[in-house]
Amino acid sequence: MEVRIPKRTLAEGLSILERIIPSRSSNPILTYLPVELSEQGLILRGTNGEVDIEVKLPAEVRGRGQVLIMAQTFTQIVRSAPGELVELIFGNGERLELHSGAFNTQLSTTSPDGYPELSFGPPGVEKIAAARLAQAITRVRYAASTEEYRAIFRGVQLEMSPTSLRAVASDGYRLACYDLPMQLQPRKLVIPARSADEIVRVFKDAQGEVALAVAEGTLTLVGEAVRMSVKLMEGEFPDYGRVIPQSFVLEATLQAEALRESLKRVAVLSDRNNHRVNLLFNNNRLDIDAESDYGRGREELSIEASGEPQLMVAYNAQFLIDALAPIEGAVRIKLSGTTSPSLLQAVEDSGYLAVVVPLRV
Amino acid sequence: MEVRIPKRTLAEGLSILERIIPSRSSNPILTYLPVELSEQGLILRGTNGEVDIEVKLPAEVRGRGQVLIMAQTFTQIVRSAPGELVELIFGNGERLELHSGAFNTQLSTTSPDGYPELSFGPPGVEKIAAARLAQAITRVRYAASTEEYRAIFRGVQLEMSPTSLRAVASDGYRLACYDLPMQLQPRKLVIPARSADEIVRVFKDAQGEVALAVAEGTLTLVGEAVRMSVKLMEGEFPDYGRVIPQSFVLEATLQAEALRESLKRVAVLSDRNNHRVNLLFNNNRLDIDAESDYGRGREELSIEASGEPQLMVAYNAQFLIDALAPIEGAVRIKLSGTTSPSLLQAVEDSGYLAVVVPLRV
Repeated sequence: MEVRIPKRTLAEGLSILERIIPSRSSNPILTYLPVELSEQGLILRGTNGEVDIEVKLPAEVRGRGQVLIMAQTFTQIVRSAPGELVELIFGNGERLELHSGAFNTQLSTTSPDGYPELSFGPPGVEKIAAARLAQAITRVRYAASTEEYRAIFRGVQLEMSPTSLRAVASDGYRLACYDLPMQLQPRKLVIPARSADEIVRVFKDAQGEVALAVAEGTLTLVGEAVRMSVKLMEGEFPDYGRVIPQSFVLEATLQAEALRESLKRVAVLSDRNNHRVNLLFNNNRLDIDAESDYGRGREELSIEASGEPQLMVAYNAQFLIDALAPIEGAVRIKLSGTTSPSLLQAVEDSGYLAVVVPLRV
Repeated sequence: MEVRIPKRTLAEGLSILERIIPSRSSNPILTYLPVELSEQGLILRGTNGEVDIEVKLPAEVRGRGQVLIMAQTFTQIVRSAPGELVELIFGNGERLELHSGAFNTQLSTTSPDGYPELSFGPPGVEKIAAARLAQAITRVRYAASTEEYRAIFRGVQLEMSPTSLRAVASDGYRLACYDLPMQLQPRKLVIPARSADEIVRVFKDAQGEVALAVAEGTLTLVGEAVRMSVKLMEGEFPDYGRVIPQSFVLEATLQAEALRESLKRVAVLSDRNNHRVNLLFNNNRLDIDAESDYGRGREELSIEASGEPQLMVAYNAQFLIDALAPIEGAVRIKLSGTTSPSLLQAVEDSGYLAVVVPLRV
């Protein structure tokens, strides 16, 4: 069994697996990297128990078979290999020789017996641009809960429908959702936020499409070189539609980045517990201020506004800063009142919507 | 009392102080920033108990006086200020107004009573290029001990003599020294390694010279805009000269970077406890190898060698990698035997010298 593969190809493949393969585990076999030599090239796999990944790398392969290698050591060695090519020679005696330039290594290998079976199921028929899926998740991810309470909110919900793929996250105090127009079979699923991060990491720079399939509580994503399966959370989000306000007393438009920078500055003086900032909408002016034991910060911005001439609303500054982050260009802020939820939308991207509940005055 | 100062000037001044002013302290007054308005401009100070720093910033100053400001909050605010200028207006009622662009802040201030007196002593008459001093310390710093045992080795020794300034560090297993040719009054002093890091941080990019003075266990460094005083350690290094070998059985020359990269690769397979690598000097070839439970790594390099045709020496790979780091171009390795100390010198920079004690075979 021999493999010849460009160092770069192998290193890129390993970097996809590196984060999910644990460096320590109560089940030590999971710290190994299953390597398969097949007619399709070199196949690497890994799992953290929640997410399984398989990467197919084009390589010159002689012989067929499977072994386990110490994942961390192998990754370090490949990354530091001096040559452009890496040659792997698998001996019978549980050892692997790696040659690259003047550098030679012998690594111990072990039998794949006992490594858990990674099953990816048949690829789905529904396809979606890999980078756009990653983008939709990225835009809402910040709103997922980190608290134990109402565990379902520690996930990102994907809602497929005949008109769109929607990604939603919420922690009960705020909500973010992003719609990608497309035609899909109706279905809802909730991905644990950390697994959602892995999907983003693997697919955000991927070319081409990824096929989606759901079976037995698992989402399988099949891209060009990568297969990934993700354990889903049980249940679905409670009806969040009712917290999205429908009628408004004031609407204001301004540049999202200017508002975000301004909030960051003023928030330095906000109370360290609730990060409270006050937004006074006053005709075509927005005054932002915050106060704490250390002092007081204040800044004013120009806005285009309609509706009530004046309104004061208090927010957790960090929630507003997070909600503004995915917005390029202008943001439209729609207030339904001083204590009822506010809506933020990107003027130039109709897909994104954020809801932030004001702080009680 | 008013100050007008470019945001950048003020932010740079604060970044010099930021690392030494503690964010929490059993003596909370140390978390404040003493600010003085003087005829020399705006003067900022700070101390961590070991290192005192004073920074003079050119500024438009009206009025004279001193106050204390919350250092961390003030630094954050200045850094995020939107304008190119920052205006500070000190009120009588224990508050400071900061204006920058459309951003306005009121910060509480407090009286400087109770803040410890920072005394820098008279500037020394002996001057040295600030960046070169930082360089000398940087080149030897890695060899300082991190162990409690023989505490003096947790410092960097500066040795001034009529021919040179020498920086030395050692942990008993290795030693690094760097000589800058210059004419100084004979004197030895030991700077705690962490304080030495602060000297490097403050002066490494500084233009011009720094004047050195020693009095009452304190080293005072006076640069163009910065004064710094550093508490010295008591005592001096034991006679390290006797561990520097004088006669050699083998000398080899090769490129330092090639050796360093090669050691890093092979060391991946070294034992995790002692990082042992074996160097087999064999005529014009150097074979490097390491072995652990995970496998074995091996690489060969070409060398120019004289002396014994063959010699095998084992080292802690990390010690060799550290010792090579300050060397650009070629390194000359001089072996005094398989168990006695080895010497590493930069071929192109006669100032640097490192000693590494081999591991016992």
